[in-house]
Amino acid sequence: MQKLGKQTIKFDNPPTIVDCATIVGPKESNGPLAKYFDKCLEDEMWGEKTWEKAESKIVKETANMVISKSGIPANKIEYCFAGDLLNQCISSSFGLRDLNIPFFGIFGACSTFVEGLSLASILVENGINYVLISASSHFCSSEKQFRFPLELGNQRPPTSQWTVTGSGSSIIAKNGQGPFITSITSGKIVDMGIKDANNMGAAMAPAAHSTLITHFKDTGRSPNYYDAILTGDLGHIGKDILIDLCKNSGYNINSVYNDCGVLIFDKEKQDTHSGGSGCGCCASVFSGYLFKQLKEKKLKRILLIATGALMNSMSSQQGESIPGIAHAISIEI
Amino acid sequence: MQKLGKQTIKFDNPPTIVDCATIVGPKESNGPLAKYFDKCLEDEMWGEKTWEKAESKIVKETANMVISKSGIPANKIEYCFAGDLLNQCISSSFGLRDLNIPFFGIFGACSTFVEGLSLASILVENGINYVLISASSHFCSSEKQFRFPLELGNQRPPTSQWTVTGSGSSIIAKNGQGPFITSITSGKIVDMGIKDANNMGAAMAPAAHSTLITHFKDTGRSPNYYDAILTGDLGHIGKDILIDLCKNSGYNINSVYNDCGVLIFDKEKQDTHSGGSGCGCCASVFSGYLFKQLKEKKLKRILLIATGALMNSMSSQQGESIPGIAHAISIEI
Repeated sequence: MQKLGKQTIKFDNPPTIVDCATIVGPKESNGPLAKYFDKCLEDEMWGEKTWEKAESKIVKETANMVISKSGIPANKIEYCFAGDLLNQCISSSFGLRDLNIPFFGIFGACSTFVEGLSLASILVENGINYVLISASSHFCSSEKQFRFPLELGNQRPPTSQWTVTGSGSSIIAKNGQGPFITSITSGKIVDMGIKDANNMGAAMAPAAHSTLITHFKDTGRSPNYYDAILTGDLGHIGKDILIDLCKNSGYNINSVYNDCGVLIFDKEKQDTHSGGSGCGCCASVFSGYLFKQLKEKKLKRILLIATGALMNSMSSQQGESIPGIAHAISIEI
Repeated sequence: MQKLGKQTIKFDNPPTIVDCATIVGPKESNGPLAKYFDKCLEDEMWGEKTWEKAESKIVKETANMVISKSGIPANKIEYCFAGDLLNQCISSSFGLRDLNIPFFGIFGACSTFVEGLSLASILVENGINYVLISASSHFCSSEKQFRFPLELGNQRPPTSQWTVTGSGSSIIAKNGQGPFITSITSGKIVDMGIKDANNMGAAMAPAAHSTLITHFKDTGRSPNYYDAILTGDLGHIGKDILIDLCKNSGYNINSVYNDCGVLIFDKEKQDTHSGGSGCGCCASVFSGYLFKQLKEKKLKRILLIATGALMNSMSSQQGESIPGIAHAISIEI
């Protein structure tokens, strides 16, 4: 691997994404991408007694599904990277505790999936054969933890995003037919002082902008190198901000750019305001929709930039602003 | 790098630990290792308005201190791995948001520091020059989050451990004089069904045992290869359990084994029951005490096994057991 600029690593032997799996909740199952998901749940509980246990079950079954789809024996998978939004990342540790694979817990809020793919790629580039990546979120467990009890029926402001119920899981490998992870651009923490915990898109857009512009500069690429540039989950408002920020930096991304949080829900019909969010948003949109587009060569070069808001409910109560982060990977076939 | 067995990586060009720094709270400053810490705080708040902000300040100042001690310009440090115990790892993201270094958030509970050293070593082995690692915990913010309001003055059972207030930070590099990280043995999640959140030592000891025995088998080493084998924070009870488990597996570790949670407090005088715990325990005992012992060649070969309990307060309320994990690194000079 070689360093390009200060934040980008280009792989000499780009890791292959062998397979992906995704399981989503009922709201996602009624959205525009429903047909791409491997399994659509009819209810948020999936037979469990709590939302947290349901989320762990989604994580577990998604990981089992990708292992099964890939045809790779579980005991050949050498490492697992996993994370989620719940306190102390319990969806991942409870969901994957039976996996019997060396486990690295990661936390990048909604950037977790791409953080995992990035670190896993470094391992695979350097001799590891198979690595599993998992990320998840659950609307109910997240709302309860970060905002208000669902039973209150609180009104949500128009800037708010809807946490995706779902998990995405991928296996990447040293050898294979692609799609290949050709480079990673890892983000710095960017905090522009946004304090509104109901406007995550605005808080995270500057981090996405920083990583995206750095990626262009480090690689010498321009927006039209890619068939698609996808942010993790800036939602409608953050998407517009990013387009503006890029324009101000001299990059017109309009024609190739979209956002996973915008794609996963129908804004008019699903009442999700600014769009989807959560670790499971980017993970399921990539694992369900984008991976299949790459496999079928409908997309040949994409840049996936997952964004995270590195705060908790207490930090907002203590008057803190919301630091953002964004990790990018380029995937080509 | 080469794989030994299924869980161990041996480095061909072992990364050097360039320098370490540690800042601890008042209780740690009255413990047996006080003279080894870089800065001992007189109060838990350090001039901040909340415990959470104080923890972030400790993280920030410890990272600044290791950068300053190392003499490496901050802009030469290519990546940062950091994590802590607070929900969504806010001590790390708020503490390090001004660092301007590509940032990977990690969560391994009290195993976080060694998880960071492990991943950083893989990057450095493969061409990255400098990586910073940070881990922290704070007694007051942890008690409040995981157990009861401190103001309640709840009695603590004899099996409970005392979360260390402190942060440890290290910089590792491709070239240097050592000590060198020669191998890593990364742990699987091990859950033996322990449900007592006031007995973390018992919950984590089986994970430590699994990683330790795997390390011996993967490397062909025996306990007496090392001058010291240190677990992260099993405390007094977990330490005794690990000795027994190893004995049952045919390994006598008695003469070389100790635990960071046992070393950091004086059991008789400091009323800390089963000893220290928290991400900051292993991080500060290593960065303060062990690193200096290695530098002065009082210890020449150590195995550091940090252990984590991958639960949160809600998982225990929902009747879940406590999954443990343990990551090991061997450090030699």
